[in-house]
Amino acid sequence: MALHTDLYQLTMAAGYFHHGMHQKRVSMELFVRKLPSHRRFLVSAGLNRVVDSLRSLRFTEAQIDYLRQVPSLRKAMSLEFSEYLKDFRFRGDLWAMKEGTVVFEQEPLLRITGNLVEAQLVETLLLSIVNTETAVASKAARIVLAAQGDSVLEFGTRRTSPEEAVASARAAYLAGFAATSNVEAGFRYDMPISGTAAHSWTMAHESEQQAFENYVDTFGNNSLLLVDTYDTLEGTRRAIEAAGDQLKGVRLDSGDLLELSISVRKLLDEAGLKDAIIVASGDLNEYRIKELKAQGAQIDYWGVGTELARCKDAPSLGGVYKLVYDHELDRPVAKLSSGKQTLPGCHQVYRVQRDGQFCEDVIGHDKEFHVNAEPLLTQFLKEGELCQKVPSLAQSRAHARAQLAALPKDIVAIELDKPLQNYPVRISSGLETTIQTVQKRAS
Amino acid sequence: MALHTDLYQLTMAAGYFHHGMHQKRVSMELFVRKLPSHRRFLVSAGLNRVVDSLRSLRFTEAQIDYLRQVPSLRKAMSLEFSEYLKDFRFRGDLWAMKEGTVVFEQEPLLRITGNLVEAQLVETLLLSIVNTETAVASKAARIVLAAQGDSVLEFGTRRTSPEEAVASARAAYLAGFAATSNVEAGFRYDMPISGTAAHSWTMAHESEQQAFENYVDTFGNNSLLLVDTYDTLEGTRRAIEAAGDQLKGVRLDSGDLLELSISVRKLLDEAGLKDAIIVASGDLNEYRIKELKAQGAQIDYWGVGTELARCKDAPSLGGVYKLVYDHELDRPVAKLSSGKQTLPGCHQVYRVQRDGQFCEDVIGHDKEFHVNAEPLLTQFLKEGELCQKVPSLAQSRAHARAQLAALPKDIVAIELDKPLQNYPVRISSGLETTIQTVQKRAS
Repeated sequence: MALHTDLYQLTMAAGYFHHGMHQKRVSMELFVRKLPSHRRFLVSAGLNRVVDSLRSLRFTEAQIDYLRQVPSLRKAMSLEFSEYLKDFRFRGDLWAMKEGTVVFEQEPLLRITGNLVEAQLVETLLLSIVNTETAVASKAARIVLAAQGDSVLEFGTRRTSPEEAVASARAAYLAGFAATSNVEAGFRYDMPISGTAAHSWTMAHESEQQAFENYVDTFGNNSLLLVDTYDTLEGTRRAIEAAGDQLKGVRLDSGDLLELSISVRKLLDEAGLKDAIIVASGDLNEYRIKELKAQGAQIDYWGVGTELARCKDAPSLGGVYKLVYDHELDRPVAKLSSGKQTLPGCHQVYRVQRDGQFCEDVIGHDKEFHVNAEPLLTQFLKEGELCQKVPSLAQSRAHARAQLAALPKDIVAIELDKPLQNYPVRISSGLETTIQTVQKRAS
Repeated sequence: MALHTDLYQLTMAAGYFHHGMHQKRVSMELFVRKLPSHRRFLVSAGLNRVVDSLRSLRFTEAQIDYLRQVPSLRKAMSLEFSEYLKDFRFRGDLWAMKEGTVVFEQEPLLRITGNLVEAQLVETLLLSIVNTETAVASKAARIVLAAQGDSVLEFGTRRTSPEEAVASARAAYLAGFAATSNVEAGFRYDMPISGTAAHSWTMAHESEQQAFENYVDTFGNNSLLLVDTYDTLEGTRRAIEAAGDQLKGVRLDSGDLLELSISVRKLLDEAGLKDAIIVASGDLNEYRIKELKAQGAQIDYWGVGTELARCKDAPSLGGVYKLVYDHELDRPVAKLSSGKQTLPGCHQVYRVQRDGQFCEDVIGHDKEFHVNAEPLLTQFLKEGELCQKVPSLAQSRAHARAQLAALPKDIVAIELDKPLQNYPVRISSGLETTIQTVQKRAS
């Protein structure tokens, strides 16, 4: 993964090397400056891939040869620096929030401490992984909340790139989805996969009736039939006729999901199939699910694809990765660009709980102590070696569930029209002092 | 890549196999039902990966073992079907538009003809590749048009997943971007890469002056300095002082880009650095670039990241892949679900040109003839083997440029406020007759 980076990371690495600065010890932190406007919280994800990537980072000979002939690097890719890259390993420290942790703006999701080159070189890769997976987990959590206990299925593979689809399926499951249609995700992460049939199954048969009979013949009481290829109600009648009490359920993928689900439920109930489920899909998201549920839609499982993989309300997550501490000078540093100021120093997030509910976060220095507060960042890598096992996907999923359950009601509300209530995050007095010191130093 | 698919593709494959339908020959086509609301055209991309994926598709023993223990597949994963999957190769035909071809709604970007299993199994993978790459190429083309000849640089890696970032960088270059910051894309596709420095470079030094001097020391006249870490104008003065006539240019990444670029240009000119360039970045897209250019911003290179990788105006592309022909019955088929009707039959797109300008597309049967019209789909795979070389990235880029140049002015306009003018796409009379026949058959 070494070249999965922006060129300027290598440019800077070369520059540091040539000025003997590559051994300078620094800390950099990854955080989201401002929550997207339709988010009141995020759910952190990506730590597993971050740890794997850092531990396996190497430059191959072919990659180094390539870098030596990049015009803008040619002057900087000396033999010494090429040798340095050949031996390069990530030997820094990683502190991070566990996957599934609820996180707010300005709070570091992770911190790297290491030499300037290793801390800098990994920026793009860390952002790439954490931004995309955290965006999906955060959206997924809202969808799960909107479904109020109904199962949600992840169907988004066709709207995102092949590799990202696997990571998205995992992030959605982490945040509470029941299963994914992505087979590779099931294979790789041992998570539940789920699927029915497509319209082409029906269209490839002489008739819908024949298509349903063949399906039931192969899948028995696992038969979940897609009934909207020609006409949803007629399709449902045919499904009942073809499958009888082997009918696990039906899927609706078009039309007015409210009215259709009510009519379909009636047909199923009249046929004595009270346990047959109704799965709905088609441009669903948390807003639409909430609305359909409020209107009385008879939907048991919600399939969400496009709006998870590529959501309209917050299509990107703008996490950034910034230098916060210069250990050589023992000095906290910050960026002061207009609108892009950062918090100086190595941070810890202290989450204050009362009666099992989160009531306030305090961003402070990494060695402060706060009563009744849990520090959210823990160490995973020490000098490049694993010093704490990364929680399993099942553990992270349980963690996410507990985190979401402890959030105040206002924060988990789906409403778009109400003015947003933000969760209280304050800066500790120790950190406030540091901010003033750094500003004074620069002016 | 065999498991990079939705479970239902395998469910259906098993069902076809068990009913002796797996040898049934069909055609399926990939197309976009409706253009996203802020697009008047798309630029096709992804063919290279489609061809590679189809040619290398295999199931490993470990994958088949996994499938045998998936609960919903258990009944269907007989020994015979497992053997079938073990020997599975894609041996179908592929017709496709060349990468860089401008495409409109309802027009097939590709068609697969093969047996039911091979045509169905690849659906998810094809959609995943073509949807994501075509979305990026289409956005990139608009951004390039807005820049009116200025160079545009791709900086989006940190906002998308690692693998997707490489494909996005390639798609952006294909559509006319000048370079990418993604090093892996340069390594893999031999395309130009570009980069400067990050704010952390400046912050890691004692002073901005020192940071600039060290940069120039390493990179000489390749020095493009980021000047907004503390104060943009002060930063520019320091850059001029540190680099003198070695200053290739400066980058602005925050603040009011219009005013700052004008002031920075003045400082550079006063220092006799008329050739020094100004690169701007920070939430740029085609709308913002157009506006800044209209207002007289002094920007030479435009860096676009987030809005390319994860654009707000059309975050997803909803390409679909549908059964269009049953060759066993020699019968065109279509889906009739409300709002999701498809065109029956194997199609060709005929593009009519007059005086070097595109003036109309006709979607017809694959063997029609239209005067002065170019058929856009050509064959790349015949029984799984390459029968036409996939154009190189350079060729595709030249093709995209020619395609964009031949589009009517209304279609390439960036405006959001005007009512959209659609490019004329009509259905041939032959195809109209087929549609009526299929509708009659179903009713």
